[in-house]
This record gives sequence, C-alpha cells and structure tokens, in this order.
Amino acid sequence: MHRFTYKNNILHCEDVAISDIATRFKTPFYLYSHDTLVDHFVKIKKAFRSIKPLICFSMKANSNLAVLKTMISQGAGLDVVSGGELYKAIKVGCDPKKIVYASVGKTQDEIKDAIRHNILFFNVESLAELDNINNIAKIMRKRPLCAIRLNPDVITDTHRYISTGKSENKFGLDFTTAEYIFKTPGGYPNVKISGIHIHIGSQITEPAPFIDAVQKVLNFIDSAKISVEWLNIGGGLGIVYSEEKPQTADKFAKKIMPLFKGRKLKLILEPGRFIAGNSGVLITKVLYIKRLPSGKKFAIVDAGMNDLIRPSLYGAYHEILSVNQKSKSKNQKYDVVGPICESGDFLAQDRSLPDLKVGHLLAVMGAGAYCFTMSSNYNSRPRVSEVMVIKGKPYMVKKAETYQDLVRGEIVPRGI
Amino acid sequence: MHRFTYKNNILHCEDVAISDIATRFKTPFYLYSHDTLVDHFVKIKKAFRSIKPLICFSMKANSNLAVLKTMISQGAGLDVVSGGELYKAIKVGCDPKKIVYASVGKTQDEIKDAIRHNILFFNVESLAELDNINNIAKIMRKRPLCAIRLNPDVITDTHRYISTGKSENKFGLDFTTAEYIFKTPGGYPNVKISGIHIHIGSQITEPAPFIDAVQKVLNFIDSAKISVEWLNIGGGLGIVYSEEKPQTADKFAKKIMPLFKGRKLKLILEPGRFIAGNSGVLITKVLYIKRLPSGKKFAIVDAGMNDLIRPSLYGAYHEILSVNQKSKSKNQKYDVVGPICESGDFLAQDRSLPDLKVGHLLAVMGAGAYCFTMSSNYNSRPRVSEVMVIKGKPYMVKKAETYQDLVRGEIVPRGI
Repeated sequence: MHRFTYKNNILHCEDVAISDIATRFKTPFYLYSHDTLVDHFVKIKKAFRSIKPLICFSMKANSNLAVLKTMISQGAGLDVVSGGELYKAIKVGCDPKKIVYASVGKTQDEIKDAIRHNILFFNVESLAELDNINNIAKIMRKRPLCAIRLNPDVITDTHRYISTGKSENKFGLDFTTAEYIFKTPGGYPNVKISGIHIHIGSQITEPAPFIDAVQKVLNFIDSAKISVEWLNIGGGLGIVYSEEKPQTADKFAKKIMPLFKGRKLKLILEPGRFIAGNSGVLITKVLYIKRLPSGKKFAIVDAGMNDLIRPSLYGAYHEILSVNQKSKSKNQKYDVVGPICESGDFLAQDRSLPDLKVGHLLAVMGAGAYCFTMSSNYNSRPRVSEVMVIKGKPYMVKKAETYQDLVRGEIVPRGI
Repeated sequence: MHRFTYKNNILHCEDVAISDIATRFKTPFYLYSHDTLVDHFVKIKKAFRSIKPLICFSMKANSNLAVLKTMISQGAGLDVVSGGELYKAIKVGCDPKKIVYASVGKTQDEIKDAIRHNILFFNVESLAELDNINNIAKIMRKRPLCAIRLNPDVITDTHRYISTGKSENKFGLDFTTAEYIFKTPGGYPNVKISGIHIHIGSQITEPAPFIDAVQKVLNFIDSAKISVEWLNIGGGLGIVYSEEKPQTADKFAKKIMPLFKGRKLKLILEPGRFIAGNSGVLITKVLYIKRLPSGKKFAIVDAGMNDLIRPSLYGAYHEILSVNQKSKSKNQKYDVVGPICESGDFLAQDRSLPDLKVGHLLAVMGAGAYCFTMSSNYNSRPRVSEVMVIKGKPYMVKKAETYQDLVRGEIVPRGI
C-alpha cells in the first residue's frame, strides 16, 4: 500500500499535506514517500524470508541517490545496467558484492570499472560479451563472476517495448548456447560462471510467465546437469496503475519458493517498479483551462512529456488526482496536457476530473519508476526537482535544473 | 543537399572523413555540418527573397548554441517555445525583435521574461493566455505585441504526435473566437494584436495542407475585415528520411508567395527540421554482434534510445550508413539496437547493411533535428557530445556529460 491518501479532502504524502509541500517547492516536482519505498522493499523481503534472497533494487526504475540509500539501508543490493549506474551505486555506498550488472552493450571501460570494483557478477547477454569479459579479466589478472542470462522464450502480457523474454528479443542467450558455455569450462578461463539470470520484462501482473520461465531454467539445470550457485530471476512484478490486479509479493513468493525446494540455489530478485512505482507521484499545477468549441476541455499543466514520457511513449495510464478534493462539483472530462509543442505531449486523455481552475494542483500517480529517470530537456525545459517525505518532513533530494544548466558544456566556435 | 557523402569509400562530413573525426571524439556523438545548415537556411531565404520574410529557426528542433549562432549569423530570428529557449536565444545574441514565442503553457515567469526582453511577439494559444499576458503587461506597464494562433483545422499526413493543426488539438484558437478578439480591441488594452500565427504540424511533405491553411487564414482576414501586420505561417516542411519526396523550398515558395500578392502582410516562417534535420548525423560504434539461433542478427551499438528516441517514440525511420564502405560483402539484415535494457531501444529494425564487425562505425542519418534535444539520461547514461564541422575542421560544440554530471543537485538526507 502506498501512502498517498486523502485526509480532510487534501491529498497527503504520508502525514504531510501535498498542498503544503507545494508552497515550499516549485511545481512541477516529483514527490516520493520514504515509508512506502521501505514498505514495498520489506514486503518482498518478508515474503521470501525463508530463503533469504539477495534483493537488488533495479536502478533503472529510479536512480535518485536518496532512493538508492533508502534501499541499501534496508539491506538491498543494486541491479545496474551501465557504468553510470555503477558509479551512482558505488557513490551511494552500496556494497559491491551486492551489485549485479546486466546490459547487452557493456563497453570495455564499463567492464573494467565493474571488475575493478569487484561487483558480485555480470549478467552476460551474449557469447561475444563473455569473450570480451574473459579477455579483459585476463589483462587485469582478475577472475570475475558471471551469470549467464538465459532467454526463456516466454510470452508476457505487457507492452512490447518492455517485454524482454521472447526468443526474438536482444536479451540473453538461448539454452543450447548456454549449455555449450557450461559444458566448455576451459573456454573462458578468466571468468567464473556461477549463476544463471533471467529477466522476462516489466509490469507483468500474472504469476504464470514467471513460473514458466523459472521452471524452464530449472529443467535446463537438471537436464544439462549444471551446477550454479546463483539463480537471478530478475524483476518485472507489475503494479496497479489503473484496473490492474497484480499479484502481491506474498502470492508471488508462494508460487516461486516451492520451485527452489531441495535446491542449493541462492536466489536473486531485481524489483524496481514494484518498489518505486507507487512510491512516487508527480505534482503539477494547472496553468490554463482551454475549452474548444466542440466542448472538449484541456487542462494545460506545467509538467510535460519531457518530465514524464510514459503516456506518450508506451501509451501508459497514470491516474490523476486533484490534490484538493473539496470541490464537490460534477466531474468533467479533460485532456491533461503539458506545455510542449507537440500533440504527443499529454499526461492523460479524456479523463474524468473535478472542475479544474488555474492554479489547481494535480498529482500524477504511480510516477516513482521510469519517470524521472526518462526525463529530458526537450523544449529546453530544465528538469524538475525531486522531493522525499521522510519521517513527516519533506526534503529536497534533487534540485531542479536552472536555465544555466541548459547551456553547460556548450561551446560556440569563433567566427561562425 | 546535405554534405554527408562518400569519398574514397569513407563517409565524410563536408571534406572531413568521419573515421578521422571518430579518432578525436569518443563515440557516440552528434555531428553537424555547418555548411549544410547554412545552405538549407539560404535555400529558404532565396526562395522567398522577393517578399523578404523573417525566418525564425525553430529552436525545439535543435537548440545547440553553435547551431543557433550559425542561424542568427545568416540573419535568422528564433522561434522559441519556453523560457529556457528564450534564455538560450538571448544568450547566443539573437536580436529580441526577431524572437517569436509560441506555447500553450506559458508561465507567469516566462511571460514576464519575454516582455522584459522586448521580443517581437507572443503567439497566443488561448483566451486565458491572452488575458494573462494582458494582465502581466498592465502590471509591467508595457504593451507587448501578440499574434493570435489560429487552428485552421486541416488534415496533414504526418505522425499524430506532431500534427498540430486539427481542431481537436490543444493548439491555437478557432476562427470564431479569434474574430471575437479582433473585434473587441478594447478587451485587451495592454497588448497590441498585430499578427496571426498558424503551425499545422511537422514533417509535412505535401504543399496542399499549407496552402489550405494559409488560404483559410486569408479568407478569414478578408471576410472579417481584419488588419494585421504579420502573418506567421509556422514551420513543418518535411525532409527526406527514407523514400519521402518532399517539396523543395523553391516549390514551396512558388505555391505560397502568390497568396500574398497585393497584401501588405509581413511573412514569418518557422523552419526547424527543414534546416537542421539532414544537417546532422549520430555517429555510433558497434559494440557486439549477436546472432540468434533463428538467424536474426543484432548489431548492438553504443548509442541507445536515451540518445535518439525518435524510432521508439514515433516509429521514425532513420537511414543507417556504414562510415566505411570498403566492405563489398553481401549485405545482411540487422536490427541496430542500443545497450538499454528494454526492447523499445532500437535505432533500426530489419535493415540491410554490410557485414558488420565490432568497432565498425555507423552513421544514423537525419539526426540533426528532434534528436539531441530529446535525449535523456535514461539508464544513467551521460548525454553524448555534439561536434560541428566548420570550414573543414571539426569543433566540439557541446561536451559529453560525465558520471559526475549524473549526480549534480542530488542530496541524500542524513539518517535514511
């Protein structure tokens, strides 16, 4: 359960009225609930407590340092996908032995950095990459651990952009190639292959694809008589954006844990959206109400697709709540749109909302994952601030960019 | 014509081998041709020379200061859509009397800044905005110029996200409301309404929608007996990405200029993509080649959807050229994908390319507009550098971000 709820008709983050927070911080801003982040992490930890998995928070969902610190203080590790994420993970004090690193395109420098930091292991996505890591490790006189990412070829009911476990996707290795690797231990003498990784996608609400994928991997381990220490089953647990009825952590654990019975496999989980998604909202203000002759209404707000691209990119649904619920007037239909000069700039379309006025505060719900991390400076808009409520107080955890930030690093050669 | 051509089987930017540029600048990087930018601007200027329009380069297409400087040195003004763009326009030395400002969501601060800088005019998108500008102007004791943006309700054959001239879009005002404004001169005493603006969308390759829209506006001016100084017909001229056969500037001018005959209207044009689109490319390097058991091949490159989101967001086609054309081997089909952890991260799908090897340089063509401006730090990837070839020499015009840039402004509160 997230902690964005109405009290006395005002939307609160934990026990703090968001209307009060908005007097201190300029809209738009992202607002996170520390309590909710912790609660979601603990729910997974408790659900799986009997097998004590390593839970690596997926940084690509939200890489704000305060969010990461919240996670590692609870004992989490981190799932990184780039040198930049590794940098932030180390910066925030994550134990490198709790860092796993996946990506189909790890560069030489990224691999060297990760080996130097002694991360737990690489999730290896191709034979070429395994070769590459092996060669770099040889030069560095190290022997890093690797997990082979398997592509289990399962069907998931999610957006095609975030489905990653079908055989035609760019991710992971097929079972035959994986078996070849495991059966050729001398082939990669400078790495230790000690795990298997799968990650079938994101925002998956049903248990079936997970069970299917894990079962396929276990069958592979058994039939090919493979010995590994770690099984990393990735992330992908769906959350409620609208009418979804996703599985709870408990139900998910009850389906997954029996599969591990009698096996000496250490489990890794990589939740991102499940923890952060509903732990954050985007607070935005109505700038203008625009009525078309057809009767259609636009609420033009101060947040745009540069701040939150999911509706435009994935057709994603985000619930929009009015921070002030006092208005008892009949709801009306609005398109909630940003100031950006294209029709793709919308946060919600044809949405029933209370009668909106200029200055009205709105909360875009479910904005804690894959929102700030994807934000850009499109239309030369400085990126917004991030605020976190911690023990009843709002803290700025990232300052908004300024106009000066927009020209950082730009150089105009003379005479042009 | 753009100046990215093969010489001795090496792709050049003007007279500089891109393979040489890539030894000096780390991939991926955006590469612009100064000559091409100038040439495209001059083409429009010449085509319309008999009526001497004000050509305001559309900054949302590319807001790099060196690109902007190139434009204003040629006599261009700038079309801005935010306070950030206005900041950059002033910073680079654009004459404020050549700045026009459109956006459905101008904030109080943005309007104040623009009035303070004495820009040419606001393109006004709604009655509420006109009221707002009028009120702010009163307080500032100024009388800024405004153009009314009309929504001409024309159909354009372009992506729905970048079509902006249909009546159901958030942009502009209907004719009836516009007439009300023009006929109520006392209604907004603190602004001077001196122009009409239209902008029907982007990447429109046919002349018909432009003619249709302009004709509708002229009919409106005549029938409502309206007197305005300026007619701003926006941008939207399409370019060649693949098989398009867009109109040339000359042909466009020949269709548009006769409509202005015998009228004392000053013309404004707002080209963006037409000038910048084919003046830039994204240079990227192959990191891995991955073959699936099905035979499908991925070229995994070091640029991802965070660097160039158009294929993912709009389903946009960008031609991909091998910088080195020497390979005479039979072409093969590749998906050219980035290192980002989602299936939406692709630059090209099922594309016929020469036999690619690790380290191979590729040029993503038509990447001068709506590419760098939309780039993000998704997956904690620092944004890449921008390089411009000027008179035979490559100059860094924006430095790549560093890992340190990724944590700028982030604050971890104590004790969490």
